[in-house]
Amino acid sequence: MQKKLIEVCYTPADYEYFKGRFDIIVVIDVLRATSAICSAIHNGVNSVIPVSTIEEAKEYQDKGYLVGAERQGEIVEGFDFGNSPYSYMKPELKGQDIVLSTTNGTRAINIAKDAPTVVIGALTNLNFLCNWLIEQDKNVLCLASGWKDKFNLEDTICGGAIAESLLKTGKFTSNDDSSVAAKYLFLAAKDNYFGFLKSSSHRRRLKKLNLNEDIKFCLTPNSMDVIPILRNDRIEKLEF
Amino acid sequence: MQKKLIEVCYTPADYEYFKGRFDIIVVIDVLRATSAICSAIHNGVNSVIPVSTIEEAKEYQDKGYLVGAERQGEIVEGFDFGNSPYSYMKPELKGQDIVLSTTNGTRAINIAKDAPTVVIGALTNLNFLCNWLIEQDKNVLCLASGWKDKFNLEDTICGGAIAESLLKTGKFTSNDDSSVAAKYLFLAAKDNYFGFLKSSSHRRRLKKLNLNEDIKFCLTPNSMDVIPILRNDRIEKLEF
Repeated sequence: MQKKLIEVCYTPADYEYFKGRFDIIVVIDVLRATSAICSAIHNGVNSVIPVSTIEEAKEYQDKGYLVGAERQGEIVEGFDFGNSPYSYMKPELKGQDIVLSTTNGTRAINIAKDAPTVVIGALTNLNFLCNWLIEQDKNVLCLASGWKDKFNLEDTICGGAIAESLLKTGKFTSNDDSSVAAKYLFLAAKDNYFGFLKSSSHRRRLKKLNLNEDIKFCLTPNSMDVIPILRNDRIEKLEF
Repeated sequence: MQKKLIEVCYTPADYEYFKGRFDIIVVIDVLRATSAICSAIHNGVNSVIPVSTIEEAKEYQDKGYLVGAERQGEIVEGFDFGNSPYSYMKPELKGQDIVLSTTNGTRAINIAKDAPTVVIGALTNLNFLCNWLIEQDKNVLCLASGWKDKFNLEDTICGGAIAESLLKTGKFTSNDDSSVAAKYLFLAAKDNYFGFLKSSSHRRRLKKLNLNEDIKFCLTPNSMDVIPILRNDRIEKLEF
């Protein structure tokens, strides 16, 4: 039986070197877009519509949608919320369709959207997602959102965690050095994500903005059994 | 006193995100271009002229130069040698000006050539190079050559080794996650480069070509006290 691929791509800019060879793309933006999307879908939000630009976000707002917009870690003026996972846990959001535009995460989702299947990964839904991926028996690419097309540590570690989980079943293989390195970084980080990521540039960025509670939430694995999936340009709950 | 920067850039494609902020660029292609260049300069070759394309290499050959050309790990037909470090140790090369074109390394050198200073790094000249870099007290970027614009493990580990060496003096700092991750990968690899890199894709590629002796040589640190430096489009020995 031929093994399936599990690879880790570090940035949306690198996606062109991986494109076309994978059945499932897992988009990862641990701090904080994909953690927020998991929170929203877990909380009963009907769908999250990811848009790349502030202009698109404004168009949805004019049509009456609730819209989250974040740039440089902060809520964009005039929008309802940013990408704090806590914003998406409010009871009044249940059943709603909401719109989200972030610096990196929603851009990565839109870059990947031509793939057969796009799902949302974070540390918060790690094990639940990995178990589902293993059952699918398809070629999987973890697409880290990075920071403005540069490598970032927390998304790579989350990708490495997924790679490690799939590889140890013996049913998957990795060919790319980026995947091997992501796995090693996960193994070095896994006993203390919080301590390991002290040196992460984005964590430093968010700390300046007093977002320590958000960071703790996003770096705590397996708080949610949920898989958000992209269908017709909207992210919904995968029911199975 | 303000600390100087030491950062690691994973591929020539990523160089645009780093460009302009560094005084010294260290170009790294451990398997095998920069290891071969260190060998050549250490062996007394007068200069190595790095060219990006096979066409340029042929033009030099027509003018009577000895020319090395490698693509996909193999010597390009019609040229004198490829990028095996052993090819550059021959006594008849002493004092000569030779030309080299390789898949990744010479491309990285040419991408970096507008920087104030470009030097050649490998594991073979690691400590000698690091000591010199520390003395310069300038902003340093390690530019890994990668494999066709994708991340590669051995160049990243070499960059991480340089970063670790400079950071531990307390006179340098890193801001980018790529540098932090490179340092962690070096720390995981440092006691056994050969074992750690068993899973490297390029090592597998070269192993198929029966280049195990080359790999051993390139992964053995500190066999040469030499710093090749780019001056007027030629790589020469830095005398100091």
